[in-house]
Amino acid sequence: MRMYDIIHKKRNGGELSEEEIRFFIEGYTEGEIPDYQAAAFCMAVYFQGMTAKETSELTLAMAESGDQINLGGVDGFTVDKHSTGGVGDKTSLIVAPIVASCGGKVAKMSGRGLGHTGGTVDKLESIPGFRTELNPDEFIKQVNDIGLCIVGQTGELAPADKKLYALRDVTATVESISLIASSIMSKKLAAGSNGIVLDVKTGSGAFMKTAEESEKLAKEMVSIGRSAGRSVTAVITNMDIPLGDSVGNSLEVIEAIKTLKGEGESELTEVCLTLAAQMLCMVTGEDEKTCFSMAKGAIDDGSALNKLREMISAQGGNAGVVDDYSLFKQPKYTAEIFSECDGYIEHTDAEKIGIASVILGAGREKKGDPIDPSAGIVLKKKTGDRVEKGDTLAVFYTDDESKIEEAKQEFFDAFTFGSEKPQPQKLIYKIIK
Amino acid sequence: MRMYDIIHKKRNGGELSEEEIRFFIEGYTEGEIPDYQAAAFCMAVYFQGMTAKETSELTLAMAESGDQINLGGVDGFTVDKHSTGGVGDKTSLIVAPIVASCGGKVAKMSGRGLGHTGGTVDKLESIPGFRTELNPDEFIKQVNDIGLCIVGQTGELAPADKKLYALRDVTATVESISLIASSIMSKKLAAGSNGIVLDVKTGSGAFMKTAEESEKLAKEMVSIGRSAGRSVTAVITNMDIPLGDSVGNSLEVIEAIKTLKGEGESELTEVCLTLAAQMLCMVTGEDEKTCFSMAKGAIDDGSALNKLREMISAQGGNAGVVDDYSLFKQPKYTAEIFSECDGYIEHTDAEKIGIASVILGAGREKKGDPIDPSAGIVLKKKTGDRVEKGDTLAVFYTDDESKIEEAKQEFFDAFTFGSEKPQPQKLIYKIIK
Repeated sequence: MRMYDIIHKKRNGGELSEEEIRFFIEGYTEGEIPDYQAAAFCMAVYFQGMTAKETSELTLAMAESGDQINLGGVDGFTVDKHSTGGVGDKTSLIVAPIVASCGGKVAKMSGRGLGHTGGTVDKLESIPGFRTELNPDEFIKQVNDIGLCIVGQTGELAPADKKLYALRDVTATVESISLIASSIMSKKLAAGSNGIVLDVKTGSGAFMKTAEESEKLAKEMVSIGRSAGRSVTAVITNMDIPLGDSVGNSLEVIEAIKTLKGEGESELTEVCLTLAAQMLCMVTGEDEKTCFSMAKGAIDDGSALNKLREMISAQGGNAGVVDDYSLFKQPKYTAEIFSECDGYIEHTDAEKIGIASVILGAGREKKGDPIDPSAGIVLKKKTGDRVEKGDTLAVFYTDDESKIEEAKQEFFDAFTFGSEKPQPQKLIYKIIK
Repeated sequence: MRMYDIIHKKRNGGELSEEEIRFFIEGYTEGEIPDYQAAAFCMAVYFQGMTAKETSELTLAMAESGDQINLGGVDGFTVDKHSTGGVGDKTSLIVAPIVASCGGKVAKMSGRGLGHTGGTVDKLESIPGFRTELNPDEFIKQVNDIGLCIVGQTGELAPADKKLYALRDVTATVESISLIASSIMSKKLAAGSNGIVLDVKTGSGAFMKTAEESEKLAKEMVSIGRSAGRSVTAVITNMDIPLGDSVGNSLEVIEAIKTLKGEGESELTEVCLTLAAQMLCMVTGEDEKTCFSMAKGAIDDGSALNKLREMISAQGGNAGVVDDYSLFKQPKYTAEIFSECDGYIEHTDAEKIGIASVILGAGREKKGDPIDPSAGIVLKKKTGDRVEKGDTLAVFYTDDESKIEEAKQEFFDAFTFGSEKPQPQKLIYKIIK
């Protein structure tokens, strides 16, 4: 078998066999197939696509290219949640405690932030004392004890995907539905849960800009999961408006706590309850409406918040932060940002807000950069709001006063003003099972 | 400027600017742009194509990426000929003396053979004493003295093309008309002649399998040449039938000599006269018919053969070979190959015949391999001929008797027999100016 023939076949629109796909993934992971052949292959896939069968086989081959988490030791139905990424996305911090408090087993590995998007591990580490590095036995034990554990990635999940994604990123071959779907799902399959709920973001702040594209991606991922014998549901949600009002690590944990107290922004709350309900459908076998009520009940009766407290304590963190936000590290500087325009906010570019928060210290531009857990932005006005010149648009938090001006420029660029109130947008587009 | 953006633009069907194309070619030649980005780019070009403007600019950028031959010292109109390659293609050895004997200045750099196709330099070196390495002053002086000089490539012509072609060859991105056209033309432009006649082979033995594809390629090349201020004509010729009856180095020189004596196969003679006539049109400004008669006259009156003698002597070779073929190195073994089938030869796969001749020692599988100048094949039957079982199909020449059986298997595979005489095929499809 030769990689040349595999590229040629895909270029001409042929369907690759399982053997051909495995030959590529194994050879590429081991460094026997060079980057230039993989790059040509990815561009051919960009143009010719892949069938559902090919996409499933590519995903499995990548999932099996490295460590695979064995959750066999967990007593009960394990359920995972994945978001295609976004700015200010703190849903995992809210959804996981809700699901665990209703009997689901959430054994979750999360990532760190890079570029304009944050990572759940960084957010949790803003809680004083919180440990995200647990050994596998501790991880399984905690899930069995309290139903919930969120840790950083251990071992090497889907190294083929990691290598291929890095290549796609520099060869303009990221935007292929098949390749995106297999990239996401390879890591989720390797992470071992029985059920997976995918939050597929759509809109300007997301990777998929239209609802149609998002639906295609969602369907591919659900189909891959099914082929691999997992339960998968995708919820297509709006990312044209940043979710919630906070962007930054401790700021987002605080917003998550508030949401679990029932004081959260209504849109953020609705998305979280919808995701939690879908996870509970898998766990309990009950219908969506029942599961939604169950999730809502876990907020109303405080059991979800309590579950968060349990997790924080179990992982060495100071659970007192739940009741006293001043226990988080505090920023040296805060700055109110005033609007320089009058009008309705017609559109908010979530990516630009993410970049502004990175400038303030909340994120990292490259792997390994330190981050400031207290840096970030709290929005005071959002899409659809009426703003007068001089109104407070947001508050910035940072330890580096010199960065405020640069962040402000990026931040202002994120807003488009208009003279009429924009139509309210749909929050949840579709649920795909 | 970033290579990523250039790939992305081409992937999305955009037209690249001159600056973008030069950024790519210069960066790639210098090793600043990695192979994997170039591979993704070539695959994007495969799918999206390039405009005439882009193709011209790519060609010029590649032509200027290395040495460029200065033929300014030649007194008169310099004219070059290029074939898109084929098995047993000895037309240069016939056409160049004809044109030079009629007043054209042929200052030609040729290549060596690789794989199943031969190279003019290897063929000339089968003449005892013949030197293909001349310094630039000797080269120009000989062209001024006798109108004709054929040497091996000196310096590095179009290194960008060399590097890019090697990459395309292993990434299934060879078959792009724009990339093929720019690859050929970059070398021809760097080689410096005022006029270029292209022999675009079409059919099973050629790179372009259909007349339509060949015409597209021909038009692209003519248009590139015109943009660069050169005279370019393309002749689309049939390669479904191998041209002439000999494949091998001294065997092809002998066939060329015979053709210049007026004893050549009629189809080979016609193709050579057509190519020579097109070159003479550029040199003399006369019409095609006049130039064809002029070329034919040069064979009839022996002046073309005489020109070949002059060139051989000028380059240190023994011109006695023209009259005494036994002066060529002789093979140790000859073997008649008898047909195992009855019927009409419906089709001959020129590539397989080329491979059989390589097995006998006439070519090299990889660069630098030695070749046997006397090895090869003389066909006794060709497409359209009636053959009875036991008839001599060909004669093999080799120094390695042990290779005859292997070559025979490949050779037999080249023939398809049928019960009816196949329709005669068109020899010259079209002339594009």
